[in-house]
Amino acid sequence: MASTVDFSKKSIVIVSGASKGIGRTISVELARNLNQNSIFVLLARSEQGLDETKREILEVDKAITVLTYVTDLSNPDIGTYNDIFTKVLTLIDSTGIECGYIFHNAGFVGSIKNTTELNDLQVWRSYFDLNMFSMVLLNNAFIQKIRPIAPRLVVVNITSLCGSKPFVNLAMYGSGKAARQLFFKVLAVEQPNITVLNYSPGPVKTEMFDSICDTADSKELRDDFQKVRNSSVLTTQQTVEKLIDVLEKGDYTSGDVIDYYDRV
Amino acid sequence: MASTVDFSKKSIVIVSGASKGIGRTISVELARNLNQNSIFVLLARSEQGLDETKREILEVDKAITVLTYVTDLSNPDIGTYNDIFTKVLTLIDSTGIECGYIFHNAGFVGSIKNTTELNDLQVWRSYFDLNMFSMVLLNNAFIQKIRPIAPRLVVVNITSLCGSKPFVNLAMYGSGKAARQLFFKVLAVEQPNITVLNYSPGPVKTEMFDSICDTADSKELRDDFQKVRNSSVLTTQQTVEKLIDVLEKGDYTSGDVIDYYDRV
Repeated sequence: MASTVDFSKKSIVIVSGASKGIGRTISVELARNLNQNSIFVLLARSEQGLDETKREILEVDKAITVLTYVTDLSNPDIGTYNDIFTKVLTLIDSTGIECGYIFHNAGFVGSIKNTTELNDLQVWRSYFDLNMFSMVLLNNAFIQKIRPIAPRLVVVNITSLCGSKPFVNLAMYGSGKAARQLFFKVLAVEQPNITVLNYSPGPVKTEMFDSICDTADSKELRDDFQKVRNSSVLTTQQTVEKLIDVLEKGDYTSGDVIDYYDRV
Repeated sequence: MASTVDFSKKSIVIVSGASKGIGRTISVELARNLNQNSIFVLLARSEQGLDETKREILEVDKAITVLTYVTDLSNPDIGTYNDIFTKVLTLIDSTGIECGYIFHNAGFVGSIKNTTELNDLQVWRSYFDLNMFSMVLLNNAFIQKIRPIAPRLVVVNITSLCGSKPFVNLAMYGSGKAARQLFFKVLAVEQPNITVLNYSPGPVKTEMFDSICDTADSKELRDDFQKVRNSSVLTTQQTVEKLIDVLEKGDYTSGDVIDYYDRV
């Protein structure tokens, strides 16, 4: 069992890809649940998107501290990530923080092509730069900088069923998610004091989902996703409520991969 | 079920990392089993190692054709891989070939450190360049060039239990293996006419195994591997015999991950 989390305590929350989609909803829904002295650190490329997420958090509770950093995670750089956290620590009142959360949500779907056509080395490298290496470095900066001020750390990797099961045209996306999942499983066995959750949100109505429906090479895949879009696609709200519920109940072993549909 | 293979037919076999260890033993043991009109294409960095593997194959049967290419897979380049196969096709008699095999065996273990210390971006990039992207490009060149001359293709990914289960200090190695496994699972669902096997050889006495025993940061991991080295470590011969047996029996679904100990 991973221990349960207590959202009523003062916390610091880092969300990557916080300018839209699941990242925005995680930020706003956690704001509803967390102690109002909590601090949110939102990362994404889009300043406008970050501002909107911040506005929605402050609509929930004006007392919450929200810091936004326009950050391009496609250029992995531990120096940049360390600098962000160092700056955060000078700006906030860190007394009484009980828990530090990071939600690794930023990512893109990559080339949606037959495996035998995935021949562009630069696309592979860029894909792993953002979706794997940048996340590893951000996570290490988080642990190094936030551990001294937060007795308890929680790391959530937003993953996908595609990282466990093979889907046509999604070899790049799936291999990146598989790599992340295994990485975080190792973190969990190495660090028994950190709670690690690999959360697979199910099929969620986001820009990424639309891009699979509309641009996949395989007509079969497009049709399958289209069918889901027209019938059982989830809202970001639905999947984030489930994620928060999983974290609160703590009924998983640290490092586990939990899918939305595992808890229906 | 993946269909069984018939080693008695004329075949073309590509082995990466063929200059030593498991790659050498795969080459030599397959030479014992395959039709003597078969062709071996051996890739590795070490010319001396390739020459020795070639010598051992010809000791088994002088009629076998063995082509060696000194290749540095740490610089992924589909042009280079296409050129190798194009050259191979000009040198061999391809009439009557029934099956093309590729064994993706080349690889290195990466940094054997705590996950929180894996902060060197260039090490991550180099690790995935060789262990993932280069293998993807080599595989695609193989499929494109060998498919026209071999009615049947068999792709074998040498993986590791570390790609499925988390081991302390092996986040880099494990994440690379997890990415490869998922990639090949997708290939299997996309290409029902290609037989795909992810084979995990168990703990085998190789240079890689020794390097984990001797250089891991974690004393616990070093001691665990040391214990295995002193008691139950496998020879390359033992694990390759099992691999050949699995391929001959075909009692797995294409894309499956089969560990040595799954078939004891």
